[in-house]
Formats: sequence, structure tokens, C-alpha cells
Amino acid sequence: MSIITLTTDFGTKDYSVAAVKGRILNDLPSANIIDVSHEITPHHIVETAFVLNAAYTNFPKNSIHIIGVEAEQTTEHKHLVVQIDGHYFIGADNGIFSLLKKEINIENLIEIKHPKSIDSSFPVLDVFVDVAIEIAKGTPLENIGNPIASIKTWIKNKPDISGLNELIGHIIYVDRYGNLITDITKEFFKEFANNRRFTLTASSAKIKTIYPKYDALVDYSQPISQRQKAGKALALFNSLDLIEIAIYKSNPDKGGSATSLLGLGVGDSVKVSFEV
Amino acid sequence: MSIITLTTDFGTKDYSVAAVKGRILNDLPSANIIDVSHEITPHHIVETAFVLNAAYTNFPKNSIHIIGVEAEQTTEHKHLVVQIDGHYFIGADNGIFSLLKKEINIENLIEIKHPKSIDSSFPVLDVFVDVAIEIAKGTPLENIGNPIASIKTWIKNKPDISGLNELIGHIIYVDRYGNLITDITKEFFKEFANNRRFTLTASSAKIKTIYPKYDALVDYSQPISQRQKAGKALALFNSLDLIEIAIYKSNPDKGGSATSLLGLGVGDSVKVSFEV
Amino acid sequence: MSIITLTTDFGTKDYSVAAVKGRILNDLPSANIIDVSHEITPHHIVETAFVLNAAYTNFPKNSIHIIGVEAEQTTEHKHLVVQIDGHYFIGADNGIFSLLKKEINIENLIEIKHPKSIDSSFPVLDVFVDVAIEIAKGTPLENIGNPIASIKTWIKNKPDISGLNELIGHIIYVDRYGNLITDITKEFFKEFANNRRFTLTASSAKIKTIYPKYDALVDYSQPISQRQKAGKALALFNSLDLIEIAIYKSNPDKGGSATSLLGLGVGDSVKVSFEV
Repeated sequence: MSIITLTTDFGTKDYSVAAVKGRILNDLPSANIIDVSHEITPHHIVETAFVLNAAYTNFPKNSIHIIGVEAEQTTEHKHLVVQIDGHYFIGADNGIFSLLKKEINIENLIEIKHPKSIDSSFPVLDVFVDVAIEIAKGTPLENIGNPIASIKTWIKNKPDISGLNELIGHIIYVDRYGNLITDITKEFFKEFANNRRFTLTASSAKIKTIYPKYDALVDYSQPISQRQKAGKALALFNSLDLIEIAIYKSNPDKGGSATSLLGLGVGDSVKVSFEV
Repeated sequence: MSIITLTTDFGTKDYSVAAVKGRILNDLPSANIIDVSHEITPHHIVETAFVLNAAYTNFPKNSIHIIGVEAEQTTEHKHLVVQIDGHYFIGADNGIFSLLKKEINIENLIEIKHPKSIDSSFPVLDVFVDVAIEIAKGTPLENIGNPIASIKTWIKNKPDISGLNELIGHIIYVDRYGNLITDITKEFFKEFANNRRFTLTASSAKIKTIYPKYDALVDYSQPISQRQKAGKALALFNSLDLIEIAIYKSNPDKGGSATSLLGLGVGDSVKVSFEV
Repeated sequence: MSIITLTTDFGTKDYSVAAVKGRILNDLPSANIIDVSHEITPHHIVETAFVLNAAYTNFPKNSIHIIGVEAEQTTEHKHLVVQIDGHYFIGADNGIFSLLKKEINIENLIEIKHPKSIDSSFPVLDVFVDVAIEIAKGTPLENIGNPIASIKTWIKNKPDISGLNELIGHIIYVDRYGNLITDITKEFFKEFANNRRFTLTASSAKIKTIYPKYDALVDYSQPISQRQKAGKALALFNSLDLIEIAIYKSNPDKGGSATSLLGLGVGDSVKVSFEV
């Protein structure tokens, strides 16, 4: 039973997602189709990469991942199948493939040959489904298209180093709770910090500890009624091993979240100053 | 493995969709349940028909489609199973069935006999699941209810013709990107146009070409920094072979989409004037 | 094929839900994963209980229900598996388990022993998936953790009785249509009413009948154009056998729903006065 995942900016109201699923099941009744996200900000390649990267590594090898963001073939963006880390990704060469791994270790890079690539305004349905079915059925990639040498590359976000004592990180994603995920990895931070004390500045918040969990600031020795309520920002190494600025029990629908309280969003910076 | 699809206005927060899925799996563990949409505008039959029509033809024959919009049985809206084009549709006779095909070619029309039809406030759960299971198990439709002769019909949107040189189309759906889908089919347009030049007027936009793809206005001979950005409306024959007014790379969450920039929405008209 | 359901406040945009599904399928390819809801109001235990309670009873026995709301293990909230009514629930002991049944009839109560419970900021992925897989594979619960004697209890909403002639009910949920679901069960109401006449007061609405269906106020003897349109509140025993204050064909996106027109929401009261 082949797993085919879908990562798109189609939303879930329109007919598009169901059309794609129906077509897959029409051709491969045993397919196990899993939604990664259909709520990608329209046309947002970097966000697509963040979400898909964080999700796909949990799936079994040989999973097939269809990318329905900026999927139209243009003269600059060809339709590709890229095999990375034992997984198959199908999409347009709009930069997304270069963002899918910390270090790109591409096993196969194939330009899809499909009669509808040129003219389709809905290539996920008209082209990618066919390609996914072929891969699921075991068709060799060389029968799906021609090997090519390189992909369009985008420069990834990574922290800037200003001297030996300062890092500038960037907010790369704001999650459902309004928490701010940065591009500073745990590994990189630990090595750079080398056990020095530090101050992480995120807007008005000055943070001196990075915790493993969201409840780190709760003082359980106090009775519940006396405990500090939600509202104080903390930093943690999150489940992706990235530094995240979070507020415990925040609810962005009700106002009080890291993004709203600190006034920070995607593209904004945080600074980490280390003791000399 | 039977495919059962769900098209509802239930939303995805409440318990309703999961209750229905649980009940189906309780009775038919092998069912493959696919969401078409749960974000239909509450009680909106025409929107339901548009979304389901655009999706269902992609599914294999013998798929069973449950329609959870205006599903309560009333004295005027009986519960029906309708077989169209090798697919089964289960819903209340609120007009939806008449909107499901360009030309209605109904193979079977059955009024459901179910003890809970009369009193249930949640007939998708109490009635339609049972009927879907029966169909999936191969029960003949005549054992599910009685054949009837006709359904409640709604007049479909179609373009108005004013003389030999003018068409008035209607916007029937605004999609996730804010693009405007009209009721002018490619086939009808080509025949009416008969290769004449034309001007399509959609609010302030005057359009003289209908393209096959969204990126048609991008001039790839220019360097990226010099290319015209998003913002200019174009028309295309979309993947449903309907004329669509779109803006390349529009994001309605950020303001600039066809619906917001042109000030047009469902029910508004566009005019196509042809050269004499 | 084991059924594993997910009830979370993760939303559907982020990578979290897909990460969990991928991990489940990696370890148990035959799992049938069903979304109950991912739109729970962040951190809202009572809402989680309402939605999950209303959904889970429809699923077959032996279904495994993962609860991804307030799931971090804290010194006060241990990770548990609770077997209720033939179903398995996996979550943190934050009060949720005490809200899952009218009368708690717990068959098994196990504190999970898992090396990642202590430190994980994403225990649904790091802990609950492993536990769900073990249960699905038939591992006895005593091998998953240690039996414990009690769970953290929350007091459930139930109507207040003021004398023999008055009930005060509470609104416990506002659904997709803006309808108001109260904590007054049909069984309790019938017994208390004992066939007496009554007036249910919900803000400005005075209601004297509780119907079985939403269309109860429509007068089908009138031509459609003359019928009273949406706008008048009615009460019904809904599909959960709870009193619900509803407006026929309401659409909260367009303004006119029970919650907006009556100005009532979760936590507000309704009063039922009975004739002496």
C-alpha cells in the first residue's frame, strides 16, 4: 500500500483536493493518501519547505510526496521528480527542492516527460497524479523522464554570525499557537555557545535560558490560583531542534501569543549575545 | 474497498464529521472515506453542487457520495438515492440532484425508506450512513426504497445571450485564491465566438485573450526584478473548462485577488462583446 | 486494521498532524487514522471532552483515541492510558478523562512508562504514537505502564436545580452554525418536567416547545415566498439528546445565528421555568 502525501495551498473548501484524491484512487485503489497541509500561504515556497521538511521524515521510506504549490510548469520551472533520502518528491522546480534538506543529498533528479506539463493549469491533477501512480507501481524513474544535473537553488535561512559573541537568528515560521520558530538549530547553538552564558533578545523579551518544554516557567510548588498565568515568553529547543520563542498556553485567537505580544513575525530577527 | 465521499457544511471543528466516519467504520471497516469538502457555505445548495460536480467525476465508478447540506427530510425534501453516471448520491431532494450534471442522465431515482428519515435532526448519521453501507454491500436499490419519477429541479446558471454579439456570464464560485469562476464553458464560448475577436469586461478589466494557464502574462525574457508583478487580471479556460478571471499569484489573505481588486463575487456578471 | 483517532488543537496548517500520521504509518502501515478534530480551541479541555465524547461512541470498540490537547507531561499531569467502554484513550491526566463519560466506568487506568514522557515538548509524536502502536499490536496494558487508582477529576457541567419549578442550564458548546448546545439532557428534562408546561428563557427568546428537528417552525402550507425566513429561535433535542437553541438555516459567517442574535456563548445560562 503506497503512501502518497499532499502538500498544497489549495485550501480545504474547494474541489481541488478531492479531485486529486479521486483521481489517485481511480488509478490506484490501494493508495493511502495523507494530507500534510492544504493551508500553505498561497504561493509560499519557503513555508511549503518548512512544513514538508518537518513532516516527511516521519513517513516511511518510499513515500511519495506531491507538492501543489507553484506547480504550474513555466519556462523556468520544469516538472521534476526528486528522490531524497529514500523519499520521492514531485513538484515544479521553483526552488522548493533545494530547501528540502539541510544538506542536499539527492539520489535522483528527473525532469518529467508528460504531455500535459506544458499546458495544464492544474498539473497536480493532470501530471503529478500520473507520475505518483507510476512511481507507486514501480516504474523506474528513467521511464518517467530524463535525468538532469541540477535544480534551481534558493539560499536557505540560517543564522548570521556577527563576531564571536553574537548570533542573529530569523523567525521562519509562526505556528498555530502564535509561537515563533527560528532558524537557530540546537546543534549549531550548542557549538557556538560553548557553554557560555547568553541573552536572547526577541523584541522586548530578554531570555537567558533555553528549556526543553513549554511549561518550564510554571512554579508547581505554588497553589494553582497563585501561579503566574500565561503571558511570559520563554525559549525552548522544540521538537524540530530549533529555538522557539513561545508563550505557555497561548491562544492567538484570544490575543495573547508570542507573535502578537512581541510584535514579531516571519522574517524578523532575534539576537543572541554571548558573554565574552 | 468501497469509496464513500462526504460533502457537507459541517465544518471540521465540531464532532459531526468524525461521528459519521466512526459510524461508517463501525459497520464497514474496509470503507475508504474521502472528504470532498466540509467548508460549504452553510445551507448553500448551488455551491455544494459546484464543488461536488467538479470533484466526483475524478472518482471511480460505484463511488458513494453522501451530501450533508440541507439534509433534513421535510415534507418537501424527501431522502433520495440517485444513481448518475455510475455514481451513487445520497441526500435530501432539495434541488441538489438536478444540479449535478450538465445534462441529467439519471439511471436510478429512489426514495429512501428508513425509519429515522422522518424525525432525525442528523440524517447524515442516522440515515445516510445506513444507506451508504447497504449500497456498498451490494443491496439492490429497490430494497432501499421505492423508485420515483422526478426530482425537484433548480434552474442552472448559464450565460445569457443578448443578440449575436454579446454574452453575459455569471460568477458561480470564488476559489481559495480569490479567482472568479464563471458559468461560460469553453465549448459554448468557442462555438459562439466562432473565431471572432472579443472583449471580456469584468468590472474595470478589459480582457481580449483567454489563456490556458495562470502565468500567461509573465514576460520571461525580462529579468525577474523587472517583470510585472502580480496584479493584472487575466482570463483562462480553467481545469473545469470554464472561463475564470484570475490574478497570477494572488493571495486573498493579503488583499490582492481578483475578487477584491475587481470587486466581483458570486452572482455578479461579466460581459463578452464580439466583433460584428 | 486498527483505528486510531486524533483529537488535537494543532490546527491543520502546521506540520504536526502529518508528522504524527507519518510516524504511525511508519510503525503500523495498516493503521486507519481518523481525524476527530484539530480545531479545538487551544488548551481547552472541556471543549475537547465535548467533541471527543460526541464522536467516539460511534467508533467500533477497541478504537484508540489520541488526545493532543494539553498533552505535555507535568508534575501534575501524568501520561495515561484509560480504557473506557471498550475504547482506549491516550493523553495527559489534565482532567480530560474525568469528562469522557456521564458516569465514569473505567476499566483500566494505566500510567504510561515511556522514556520520553518527562522531557518531550511534543509527546503526541514522541510518546502517544508508540503507546497507540503497542495497544494496536495487542501488548497488554500492564506492559505499557502501571495501574493507578484515580484520575484528576473535573466537575462536569450539569444543570442547576432551583426548587421544584426551575432549572438553570448552561451553554457548553457553540457549533458551526452558531447554535447553542446546553448541558440539559433529554432524559433529565423529561423526568424533571413530568409533563408540565414550561418556558425556556434564552436571553430574549421565550420558548415553550422542544422539537425534534430544525425545520419545526416552517409552515409548509404557505407558499415559499410567504414563509417566515430564518431568524426565530427554537429549541430541540439534538442528536446528542441535549437541548439546543437553534436558528433554522443560520449562517454565522453572515451574522444571523443563535449565538450572535441572542448574544449567548459558552458558559452562559438558560432558564427553564415549569408550571406549578
